Amino acid sequence: MLGVLGGMGPAAGAWFAYRLALLTGVTSDQEHLPVLLVNDPRIPDRSEAALSGGTSPLPAMQERLRFLESSGCECAVIPCNTAHHWFSELQASVKIPLIHIVPAAIAGLRARGIGAGPIGLLGTRATVRSDLYRGELAAAGFTVLPYTQDDVERLCVRPIQAVKQNRVAEAAAALAEAIHTLKGRGAHAVILGCTELPVAFAALAAEDLDLPVVDSIDALAVSALGHFGLVVNRSAAAGSGEPAR
Amino acid sequence: MLGVLGGMGPAAGAWFAYRLALLTGVTSDQEHLPVLLVNDPRIPDRSEAALSGGTSPLPAMQERLRFLESSGCECAVIPCNTAHHWFSELQASVKIPLIHIVPAAIAGLRARGIGAGPIGLLGTRATVRSDLYRGELAAAGFTVLPYTQDDVERLCVRPIQAVKQNRVAEAAAALAEAIHTLKGRGAHAVILGCTELPVAFAALAAEDLDLPVVDSIDALAVSALGHFGLVVNRSAAAGSGEPAR
Repeated sequence: MLGVLGGMGPAAGAWFAYRLALLTGVTSDQEHLPVLLVNDPRIPDRSEAALSGGTSPLPAMQERLRFLESSGCECAVIPCNTAHHWFSELQASVKIPLIHIVPAAIAGLRARGIGAGPIGLLGTRATVRSDLYRGELAAAGFTVLPYTQDDVERLCVRPIQAVKQNRVAEAAAALAEAIHTLKGRGAHAVILGCTELPVAFAALAAEDLDLPVVDSIDALAVSALGHFGLVVNRSAAAGSGEPAR
Repeated sequence: MLGVLGGMGPAAGAWFAYRLALLTGVTSDQEHLPVLLVNDPRIPDRSEAALSGGTSPLPAMQERLRFLESSGCECAVIPCNTAHHWFSELQASVKIPLIHIVPAAIAGLRARGIGAGPIGLLGTRATVRSDLYRGELAAAGFTVLPYTQDDVERLCVRPIQAVKQNRVAEAAAALAEAIHTLKGRGAHAVILGCTELPVAFAALAAEDLDLPVVDSIDALAVSALGHFGLVVNRSAAAGSGEPAR
């Protein structure tokens, strides 16, 4: 059984479980991976804690991971990029392996045939300003396009806030604008490095996109399926790192 | 915390959790309802057991409901219409209240302004042939349009099977055909009485529909929000029983 520490936000945790089901190559219910999802919004805000020293979400996240472990999960994922700032402390709190979202996203770039070059990263303020993605992307031969303060607010924060407030159409329009801007600046691909963004991405028409987009939530689901030796349903693999759309 | 006994099928259980998040009227993560979802596909097939005496899914469902109860859930839902054939035995196995999906769907009809008359019911063979919906709909002043054997296979089974096999576009086309057929036979509304169908319904363009459709998964989410005193986000309420689309 796969444990999912969700609720950050609630739509993202549930969307991960939904995408995992669609991305699994099966012909009947019984072949799917059993999943236990704790979709708990009571976890303190991750961005606030990472940037300005608000209440730490770590104890609440560790407690729920231990619950997943004691309930029989053999492996766990956290469909929230910002939460990965505490990854080593989270992994230290349980014996079961946690799958890290950044290598999953890099595997997604490679599966789309993108091996190096400038990449656009969209995520929360904490994610795009920190070393969470930069270090691993640099080690893998990629560079992250630089942002001004205004870029962060306009390209990243706007679509994320709209998803969090359930304004999905507005989020999709803001995300389309961000992808076009990053393409104009030379990005070879865009990583959706916030688990709210796939909700907006799903509302975008395929024909609006002319740049490979790696959705970190789909990439994490593909990595989890690989961990359990399950086959990916290629027709459902959109921005997941699978070539078919 | 709301318990969700899912996995029947896995896409439906996760879709319920996703719709619940979008249907909640909030402005930040922390206002959402905490959810524990057991999305476990190892539960034996419900339709097979209900129709031809296959392995009963009851013990596996009862065990998972007791797990939800002992994990702190104050109320639980089962986003699977066919599983409601065992509702009284399931309710008897736990002390926490379970919300029944049929009254939730009837509340959805009423909220759409439909108080009586012929209704089209789409669901698994077990659901449409049984009294699960018929009795309660009759008591509430509705009648269910009759089906031939061929109708059941063409209108109901085809779109459901396509969702279970992750062929969503094909499922959407089959569902559109079913809704148009039922409208032609005089239905005042259609109930999506199988929790696979909303996955197909979400893939349908709004302009394809010219009949009120009550989605039992959204109706169940709206009932759960009501149980916890939470407000519905009307802009997300499509076939949920809320008038706005």
